[in-house]
Order: sequence, then C-alpha cells, then structure tokens
Amino acid sequence: MGMATLEDYRTWFHARRKEILEEYFTLLRFPSISTDPAYKKDVQACAEWLKAYLDKMGLTTELWPTSVNPVLFASCMKAGPDRPTLLIYNHYDVQPVDPLELWKSQPFAPEIRDGKVYARGASDNKGQLFYVLSAVRAFLELSKEHRLNLKMFIEGEEEFGSMGSREVLKTKKEQLKADYCLILDAGLPKPGVPGVTLGLRGIVTMNVKIQNSSGDLHSGLFGGIVMNPLQALSTALAGLWEHGKVAVPGFYKDVVEISLEDWQMVDHSFDKEEFIRSFGIKAFGGESGYTLLESSWVRPTVEINGMSGGYTGKGFKTVIPSEAYAKISCRLVPNQDPDTIGKLLAEYIRGKLPQGFHCEIEVHSGGLPVRTSAQSSLAQTVKRAYEAVFEQPCQFIFCSASVPIVADLAKASESSVALMGTATNEDDIHAPNEHFGLNQFELGFLTMAKTLSLIAEN
Amino acid sequence: MGMATLEDYRTWFHARRKEILEEYFTLLRFPSISTDPAYKKDVQACAEWLKAYLDKMGLTTELWPTSVNPVLFASCMKAGPDRPTLLIYNHYDVQPVDPLELWKSQPFAPEIRDGKVYARGASDNKGQLFYVLSAVRAFLELSKEHRLNLKMFIEGEEEFGSMGSREVLKTKKEQLKADYCLILDAGLPKPGVPGVTLGLRGIVTMNVKIQNSSGDLHSGLFGGIVMNPLQALSTALAGLWEHGKVAVPGFYKDVVEISLEDWQMVDHSFDKEEFIRSFGIKAFGGESGYTLLESSWVRPTVEINGMSGGYTGKGFKTVIPSEAYAKISCRLVPNQDPDTIGKLLAEYIRGKLPQGFHCEIEVHSGGLPVRTSAQSSLAQTVKRAYEAVFEQPCQFIFCSASVPIVADLAKASESSVALMGTATNEDDIHAPNEHFGLNQFELGFLTMAKTLSLIAEN
Repeated sequence: MGMATLEDYRTWFHARRKEILEEYFTLLRFPSISTDPAYKKDVQACAEWLKAYLDKMGLTTELWPTSVNPVLFASCMKAGPDRPTLLIYNHYDVQPVDPLELWKSQPFAPEIRDGKVYARGASDNKGQLFYVLSAVRAFLELSKEHRLNLKMFIEGEEEFGSMGSREVLKTKKEQLKADYCLILDAGLPKPGVPGVTLGLRGIVTMNVKIQNSSGDLHSGLFGGIVMNPLQALSTALAGLWEHGKVAVPGFYKDVVEISLEDWQMVDHSFDKEEFIRSFGIKAFGGESGYTLLESSWVRPTVEINGMSGGYTGKGFKTVIPSEAYAKISCRLVPNQDPDTIGKLLAEYIRGKLPQGFHCEIEVHSGGLPVRTSAQSSLAQTVKRAYEAVFEQPCQFIFCSASVPIVADLAKASESSVALMGTATNEDDIHAPNEHFGLNQFELGFLTMAKTLSLIAEN
Repeated sequence: MGMATLEDYRTWFHARRKEILEEYFTLLRFPSISTDPAYKKDVQACAEWLKAYLDKMGLTTELWPTSVNPVLFASCMKAGPDRPTLLIYNHYDVQPVDPLELWKSQPFAPEIRDGKVYARGASDNKGQLFYVLSAVRAFLELSKEHRLNLKMFIEGEEEFGSMGSREVLKTKKEQLKADYCLILDAGLPKPGVPGVTLGLRGIVTMNVKIQNSSGDLHSGLFGGIVMNPLQALSTALAGLWEHGKVAVPGFYKDVVEISLEDWQMVDHSFDKEEFIRSFGIKAFGGESGYTLLESSWVRPTVEINGMSGGYTGKGFKTVIPSEAYAKISCRLVPNQDPDTIGKLLAEYIRGKLPQGFHCEIEVHSGGLPVRTSAQSSLAQTVKRAYEAVFEQPCQFIFCSASVPIVADLAKASESSVALMGTATNEDDIHAPNEHFGLNQFELGFLTMAKTLSLIAEN
C-alpha cells in the first residue's frame, strides 16, 4: 500500500525540526491556566491559535463552547465511511505555576537546557499535543491515499475537572463517533521503556457531616451523657473495612475480574523497596487475596481523604464536638457505577451511626472506570508502534488514578480506548521547572506517526 | 457553748453590708486574669490587697510564690491542737473577658443591676471568696472562744490549670494539714436549691499522632498500596469501645463502685428532656448497665476531643494523608490513677495500629478523682448548714467535671473534702456579663458561717 516508513517520518521530522520547535514554543507561551479565571482570555487565545494551526494543517475545525473553556474539535474524514476512524484526545490548558520563585526560567518563556524544553505545559500536555499534531501533519503529507479518518478532541479544562467538556460530549455523540480512541495524556512506565496504558480506575467522592448536639459540649460535664460524634464517625468509618476487604454489602457486586490471559500480559514488576525509599511508606495496604499491584490496578478501594472534628489546635480543649466531618473517595473498576457505589456507601455509613444522629452525605458526580483488553486490536497496534520506535518490548500497564473524561469520551464515541504517551515521572509536571526532553518529543512523534500508519494499513 | 445563731450572723451582715459590698467591689476591680501574662502585675496586686485584707481580719498570712502566681495562705490556729482544723479553698484569679463588646458594663467596673452584681469574677470565684472571708470575719468576731482552727488556701491560677499551685502543695504538707477541706468553688444544683457536691471525676488527656508515608500521597495512585492513616486511626479509636463499655483491658480494674447506701442518698433527678431542649442532643451515650446519671457522675469515660488528618478544607482533594491526629481524654473515678490509665490507653491504641506505623502518644499529667461519702461528718455538717439557711432539704450531688487541685489539696492536707457554694448555672461564669445575685452572696455568707459554727460546736 506504500505506507511511509519510520525512516520517512524521521527524515520528514528532521527537515522541519526547527520550524516545529518554534511553533511548539509559540504554543507554550500562552499562559492557558484553566483553574484561574484571570487567564480566561489567554485560554481563549490559545484555543484560537490552535484552531488556525489545525486549519492550516488541512483539518476541519470547530470550537465547541462549554460552560468552562472551549473544546477544539478537528477532523479529516477523507478516508470515507468504509475506513476506520481514530479519535485522539489532548488538552491545551495547563496547571498554575506557583511557587514561581522555584522556576529557573520563566514558566511561559520556554527555554532549552541540556536537551530539554523547560516551560509550564512542556510535557503536560502541550508537548504531547504538539508531537501529535506534527505526526498527524506528517501522516497526512506522506500518505498517498486517505485510509484513516481522524478526529481530534482537544479540551481546555483538563486541569480544572473537565466539567464543561464532559457536558458537551453528551450533545456531540454523532460527531465523535469513532472506532478507536487514543488518549495522548499518559506516559512511559519508565524513561526509555514503552508501555500502553490499558485502563484507569473510576472515582466517586463524598462529603460526610454528622451532628449530635447544637454546640460543642464540655467533655467533663457531658462525658457519659451524650454520644460523641467523633466516636460515632470513627466507628462508622472503621466499619467500612473488614478482614482486608471493603465491608459494604454489594460493593464488589459489579466488579469484573480481569481475565487471567490479560493479567498475564501486563507487566508485574512492583518494586516495594522503591516505595519505601521514595515515599517513606511504613505500612502497606492492599485487598486481602490480591497482590499490592492488583489492589492498585484492577481492584476498587475506599479511602478516607480527610477527617476532622472537635479541637484540633495546639494544647488541649476538653470538648465533645457538636459535629464531625469526613471526605471519602472510592476508586472503581469495571463495571462499578459511581452513582450506585456512592449511594451504597452513603446508606452503609448512615446505618452505622447511632440512632437520632443528624447526617448529611453529599455524593459528588463521579467518573467511570476504563479497561481495555491487552488483546484488543488497538492495544496490539499501539504496542507494535512503540516496539518499532523504541526497539524493545512494550509493556501493558494500568493507571490507578482516575480521568473521568476518558470513559465519557470512549462512551460518547462508542470506541475502544487506550492511553499512550512519552511523558515520564521525571518531567516535573504540575511542579516548578516542568520539562520535556527533545528526545521524548521525537519518540512521541514517531510512535504516533507509526500508530497512525499501522491503523491505516489494516 | 454560746455559738452565734443564724440570726446573729444575719444581723452582723446587715450592719456591715455596705462596707462588705464596697470591699467586694474593690476586689472585683483587679483584672486578675491568670491566662494572660499581660495581667501579671494585676494578679500580684490582687494577691497583695487580699493579703492585707486578711491581715486586718486577724489571720496570719503568707504569699507562697509558685512558678505561676502566688498562693495566699492564711490561718488562725488559736483553737489549739486538740480542736479540729478546717481548710478552705478559693481562688482570686479570673477568666479573660473576650468578647468585650458583649458586656453591658465594663467587666472590671462592677455594677449592680436588678439585685445582681455584674463583673468578671462576680461569681467565679471572687464572689464566693468574699462571702467566705466575710463569714470567717463574722465567725471570729461572734465566737466567744476559739474552738475551730482555720486555714485558707487562695490560689491565683485556677483558670490556668493550677500547675504552680499544685507544685507548691508538695512542699507545704505540714502547714496544710487539716481534718476537713471545703472547696468553695461549687454551686447549687438549681437556683434556690441547696446541695453538697461529694465528688469530682479525675482526668487524663493525651495527644495521638500517627504517620505512615513521608508526605501526603495521591489517593488514586496509592489507593490499594498504602495503609491509610485515617483508616488506621479510625479503626484503632473505634476499638476503644465495645458493647457500650470501654474495651481497654484493665480500664475498670481499679474502679470502686459507689455504695448502694451512698447512691440512694444522692439526688437522682435527671431531666433528659431538658438536655434535648437546651443542648439539642439527639443521641445519648452512657455506659451499658448504668443510667445516664451514673455514667456521668460515678463512672469513667473515654472521649475523643479532636481528630484531624488529610484535606479538611472546602471542595475535595484526593489525598491519602501522611499523618492523622487525635486528642483523647478520660474522666476517672476512684481509685483510677491518671498515669496508669494514660499508659493503658496509649498501649492499647498502639496495639491496634497496623504494624510499622509511626506513632507518638503524649500523655499529659492528669488529675485524681475525688469522692466523699454522703455519710461523712463533713458532708452531713454542710448539709445541716444549707438546710438551716435555705429551709429546705439539701441534696447530695456529684460534679462530672475535673478540678485536679481538689484531690491534690485533700491529699496534701490529709483531710476529707467536700465542695459547696451558691453559684448557679445562670451566673454566666467564663462568659460576658458574669453576675452574682446579692441574695446568692448573702446565702453563701450565711451557709458558710453556719458551717463554721456547726464544726466548731462539735
């Protein structure tokens, strides 16, 4: 079919390297901080600059307004309805830059030092976005015929919870329809080692507030008369677990165990010593009957994220608090539903409180889990692309965290989804001196271009 | 023997009422706030004024320096070694006055409104101190012979924990020796209803800090890998109770049950509805097998006074906290020892934590419980005095709170102890517009004078 080879892409890239880096730098100069309303105009300007850039690439573009920041949607459907469609996800917004004094160069004045680009967003996600755009450009320029339809969903509020973007998905199902969905917001298991991320956990969070008396009470005068809200809350929350498992009836009911074949295909290396060294962890957790890696990747959890009540300052105050609070989150796996699990937990906690206690539980809108089989054609294709570029075996991994829009995008587009990228844990994303190696940029470009070619070849 | 009658005391009082109130007001004008170092000089001046006043009364006085504020010790030992000795406790320091804007008149400019004296300390404890001094004066003036030795221990740091005063007790045992000890810092069960307070609960407090990882962790990436400190602490603290009792082995070992005879002599009225109305209490506590009144008066308790960890602000943060904290107190009854119970609890909590957790438990120096039999001669004498003055039956009650110096004073003086006074729950002590009724002052004077006479008569 005459697809461009990896060598063709490499040649194409090096011929245009200077120009590509200049435009990547232009993108990095927009302070598109989505969490701070002061940067609203910069976010908008960034979206418009990108739209013009994608127009120039020959894509059909639209800015979809949302309740927060616009989504840039782009497509090239010239391959026609008989050929596959790939939907690519990136985001153009960035994290705030504080503490500014720790930056060695200005966060929005990109600078190359030691072969790395330093700037806010250099890696997350403008670096990954810009090698994707370059790969799409190269793919379109080097392909002799259109054999793959392309769609791009580039949001402007990933760092702000994606509430607006997720809303807009519901109204754009037809336009988003695709066979495959690739999320270009993931990274390598280790620098230099390729990996396809097959899944994310879902999430549901809730705030719990319980109250007994109308005000704090003297613990001498009232100790033995009133039920203490901190005792009640500790007891209710302690009851969430039993024998190393979540004790809430029905919590595991919808959990789909990963197949043995799939589990055998994922990378099992888990360096406990590294966790002790890097994070000072003294006591490990994990669900009973599962390894720590399974507990983290393919099993659900419940965590208390915050708890407070009574006097928590210096010294001592002998009060029985009027109220006690907790923040609780669950990480979910297929096919657990955030709303269902949220309700289950809320009911369980209510049921464990002493009779008469006032209890408010606010369950927030959550995010669905994502899991793709390692045997799926998308996962296998990305693996082949990685291996061609990195010239070493590609791993399959999971991410224990949650990115709610991923499941929503897969659902809206009715596509199978995988996560990829060349970011690493060492890029200092969300931190001062965020950076992205020029080699990571090029490896990302090549992997993306190769992935496009491989899907088009099919 | 020719003891003065109640009528003699009443006549004595009314002949000197104006002068007594003037001197009571002078005492109230000293801003003797012990918790604020800015008032150190005022506290000292107050002690010196009182010393001069007691000198004038004909008592032998000494100011005992302590690490905080001086104790005024006064005595009149003219009755000789064959006659009984009574030790009286009061304090001359007061609480701070904030919020000042809620006071209708200046806190240190006493004012009479509707038959009540408004000032900080009007009730707690300068009002009770000054009617005691007046009663002692009347008793000494009206007695034809000395039949009772008197000692007074008037401290200047009751509102600041009495640490200095408690230290000084250890070195003054010989001087403090007495047969009876009366604590004039208690009140009436209800306005107009007399009552002798037979006991106080002891106390021990502790701060608990547990730690797992070296910093807060992302609850997605680490949920299922690390043990959550809030889960660990909730579980350990929830384990402090079982089936409505404290589950710590040995906690109840040294508890001496109150005798059935004594329990039958105390007032059993407990108005649950009143607790619901006044404090909005929804869920009552109490030890299983005991009434709420028993749980509050003669049974020990464990309370969580504060708890915190993780993110407790607005919104949500999905962290697994590095640390979690709790503040815990126990109220104790005879013969529980604060140090022993503190150690028991600390060991128990440690034992309930996951292996490897870092745990710091700081047990503070506590206070012993106090309990006197209703059948003791001191309790019976005070009862007779109250009944003579109030012309209605006197109750026996307990106070569920803790005043560590009371047990220490009883121990140092080797005397039997009871608490009395004419303060009420309606005096707004520790609050803006603290006040003391002129009738409460006179009733206090008469009860104290009658008590002195009755002991002297024996």
